[in-house]
Amino acid sequence: MYPKQHIVGAEGDPNCESWKYSIEVNNAGTWYSIPRPCIEFVREYINTGGYLADSRSAAAFSLTFARSVKVGEGKGMDAWIFDVDETLLSNMPYYKATGFGTEPYNETSYNEWVETGLAPALPATLSVYKWVKKLGFKIFILTGRPTSLAAITQQNLIDAGYSGWEKLILRGPEDEGKKATVYKSEKRAEIVKQGYTIQGNTGDQWSDLIGYAVSKRSFKLPNPMYYVP
Amino acid sequence: MYPKQHIVGAEGDPNCESWKYSIEVNNAGTWYSIPRPCIEFVREYINTGGYLADSRSAAAFSLTFARSVKVGEGKGMDAWIFDVDETLLSNMPYYKATGFGTEPYNETSYNEWVETGLAPALPATLSVYKWVKKLGFKIFILTGRPTSLAAITQQNLIDAGYSGWEKLILRGPEDEGKKATVYKSEKRAEIVKQGYTIQGNTGDQWSDLIGYAVSKRSFKLPNPMYYVP
Repeated sequence: MYPKQHIVGAEGDPNCESWKYSIEVNNAGTWYSIPRPCIEFVREYINTGGYLADSRSAAAFSLTFARSVKVGEGKGMDAWIFDVDETLLSNMPYYKATGFGTEPYNETSYNEWVETGLAPALPATLSVYKWVKKLGFKIFILTGRPTSLAAITQQNLIDAGYSGWEKLILRGPEDEGKKATVYKSEKRAEIVKQGYTIQGNTGDQWSDLIGYAVSKRSFKLPNPMYYVP
Repeated sequence: MYPKQHIVGAEGDPNCESWKYSIEVNNAGTWYSIPRPCIEFVREYINTGGYLADSRSAAAFSLTFARSVKVGEGKGMDAWIFDVDETLLSNMPYYKATGFGTEPYNETSYNEWVETGLAPALPATLSVYKWVKKLGFKIFILTGRPTSLAAITQQNLIDAGYSGWEKLILRGPEDEGKKATVYKSEKRAEIVKQGYTIQGNTGDQWSDLIGYAVSKRSFKLPNPMYYVP
């Protein structure tokens, strides 16, 4: 018997393609680890290019939309929001070393990895980032990382090829204990209050994208490794 | 050269798995027909069980959530909303006969099919419907079909095995020209105003699920055939 979170679909139906479908469209709700029967499926999805292909597809649709926005008319007030982990930066080296999220989240070892500042860019998002910057969008980086990681996050982003953002927003002491959806909605509302129109929003979690003060178009990157409520 | 809507991902990258990913998570935005290079992919997805498996997975997660709701405490005011087309009923016989949505939408022939009243149930949703009814949820059926189709829709639903809903809501003259997201949000707001808590919402289109007066949990059924904005 698997623990409850390991059940795949109805009555333990081990259809991993459909499990991926359900987590990506947010049918699954909160989940804690990859179902045991799908560990190999996820490993293969990541190692043989499916993961990168899905993120490239997300990037392609992002660019189609970005190019369709008449940025000049926003008088420099058209914003695009990017999340950090599994969006601008990829923690794949960490997840590869720890079995692709098959183990429950280990805060200590994860933080050790983050503090190395060695996370590479997710290539598809780096490309979107450069384009939207070139097109004149103001870029806000909105992450659930705490302000104690501000310096290492900024350096990691620069090392990975990012530059020229308007603001890097991290979770401050006043945001502690808030669900990601609430924290990120509040921060987006502040951006809107400053007069920006949030055109695009790119993240790997639904909690990056839903709530209030939402963007005109949002772009969900794949993440079969973990869920942030 | 394909027309613009036929481009799959970036620079015509014919990765149909990733196209499916992008339409299902709503990265693609409005799209008008299946990209030509993906017609066979969609045919196979539907004919070899992938489509049904994804809808079964959605059903499984719906039931897990439905069973977790303490329905008694809502004093009979816990609601569950279902869409009709490609949710309660399947128009697959029509789409199989017309190349799986590869042709642009033809209102005349589609209406002729609907008026036969012969659409079968989508099996996974029929199962969810029966369970949520048994669990004590009040069922609202909210469809973009016009009120002129009220009688045939009701009969089709009964013939397909559905019964005992609270209300079947169709698009009235006052809703003409409204985007589905707006029309459905307005109708959900009326349900909330009557004192109901909308716990679950099952639909095949994001326009069934987003907007305002949204449900606590929503369940996106697959639909690689058409998009309703």
